[in-house]
Amino acid sequence: MTGSDKEVHHFYAQVYYEDTDHSGVVYHANYLKYFERAREDIIGVNTLSKMWHEDGIGFAVYKLNVGYHDGAVFGEKLDIRTSWVKDGDYRIIFTHEAWKPAAAKPAVSCTLELVCLGPNKQLIPIPTLTFLN
Amino acid sequence: MTGSDKEVHHFYAQVYYEDTDHSGVVYHANYLKYFERAREDIIGVNTLSKMWHEDGIGFAVYKLNVGYHDGAVFGEKLDIRTSWVKDGDYRIIFTHEAWKPAAAKPAVSCTLELVCLGPNKQLIPIPTLTFLN
Amino acid sequence: MTGSDKEVHHFYAQVYYEDTDHSGVVYHANYLKYFERAREDIIGVNTLSKMWHEDGIGFAVYKLNVGYHDGAVFGEKLDIRTSWVKDGDYRIIFTHEAWKPAAAKPAVSCTLELVCLGPNKQLIPIPTLTFLN
Amino acid sequence: MTGSDKEVHHFYAQVYYEDTDHSGVVYHANYLKYFERAREDIIGVNTLSKMWHEDGIGFAVYKLNVGYHDGAVFGEKLDIRTSWVKDGDYRIIFTHEAWKPAAAKPAVSCTLELVCLGPNKQLIPIPTLTFLN
Repeated sequence: MTGSDKEVHHFYAQVYYEDTDHSGVVYHANYLKYFERAREDIIGVNTLSKMWHEDGIGFAVYKLNVGYHDGAVFGEKLDIRTSWVKDGDYRIIFTHEAWKPAAAKPAVSCTLELVCLGPNKQLIPIPTLTFLN
Repeated sequence: MTGSDKEVHHFYAQVYYEDTDHSGVVYHANYLKYFERAREDIIGVNTLSKMWHEDGIGFAVYKLNVGYHDGAVFGEKLDIRTSWVKDGDYRIIFTHEAWKPAAAKPAVSCTLELVCLGPNKQLIPIPTLTFLN
Repeated sequence: MTGSDKEVHHFYAQVYYEDTDHSGVVYHANYLKYFERAREDIIGVNTLSKMWHEDGIGFAVYKLNVGYHDGAVFGEKLDIRTSWVKDGDYRIIFTHEAWKPAAAKPAVSCTLELVCLGPNKQLIPIPTLTFLN
Repeated sequence: MTGSDKEVHHFYAQVYYEDTDHSGVVYHANYLKYFERAREDIIGVNTLSKMWHEDGIGFAVYKLNVGYHDGAVFGEKLDIRTSWVKDGDYRIIFTHEAWKPAAAKPAVSCTLELVCLGPNKQLIPIPTLTFLN
């Protein structure tokens, strides 16, 4: 519920058994879950619920790219650092990073484009929302 | 689409990276995914899709119990053996077992009760379906 | 890190997109993830990490049974209420409940037996741990 | 076990309940699981198991980018089309597409770089493997 394109939002994700795989580190697709939890914290679950249930509109991931630099292990608490910017009327660009405790650089970094879909899954302009102010 | 309460249905589940955790074996909750895939194979995805999209009804898990005897590892192809029986008008009881290759007994066994919910999430009688013949 | 067999431990699990399925509620297997997160909070991730990396021992789920009474939806914050008791030298019995906000009874309830496995996956006595005091 | 950089490998992924979210389509991170299953089919699980357990080496995802064009729904059988090419001594580039039945273009497309890590998580040259011939 905090943050803007000028500051960085922090969300903490604990690495649980469910997140790791037999190689000993977090399974590569699971960082996308951490990043989405951070976005839901930023946009607000009440806002998302209301948009979905009352207006039939929802956000959808349109594009993403991820770089993996280090692996997080069971028990670590990751600092998910997110910034974002609205780009035109139709998309928001998020930059996410997953930081291990006391690390000098992010373990995983991601850029992601979010769009908004209406009741018939058609592209609609991003609504006016508090977190975009 | 095959099987009845007199025979055993076989469904094969490959253990992928995504299924394991850092202890080296399949994460305990993921066997429930294998068992559901087997049930969807038994009931038929077309039947399930049609029930859901045309009639607004769906199956729901009501109860389950699981016993864990051995751990499956990456790369194993598990034989999911399932039998089932209709119990009264409102529930179907499934017995699932996950067998590792060349094993003498199941690695994981499960008994599960499935019920049917109508459009308002109310309990309804199990419809007449081919796999129950 | 708190709790004993005399009191109830509270752990809060936010329902994210990743947790739900197309029927609109939390996928049945995912409650087991919430319950495990609660157990990891109770036992302590540092304790679990140390046991695993230094002593090569870990906890394993031996048995569980679950009853599903209501479905949690996106955006809800579930109160996972857990109590536990050591049963003999070799197992701990956990009772977990998932409570929706302002509910009169649990949405999902679970009883689960945890055992301890040594370096060769053999059953070993439960070690002396703070949360069992 | 088939395919080369000249041809396209086909792997079929059934969309199960577990794969979808409450918006009605496959959760965005889960396509990465389908793509990894395809790669494991291409490289061979026996090869991957042997590399891991005997030599202590494994593949790791280094980079990926994904474009989402359409959403897959419960019950669909997706055709995961993959091609790949070795790029220098240290990486393999995979191109994955997820095709819905009877579609004119892919629902999801992905380019992914795989590297190889040795026992101490150091970067090592890609070993000589059949699927790279």
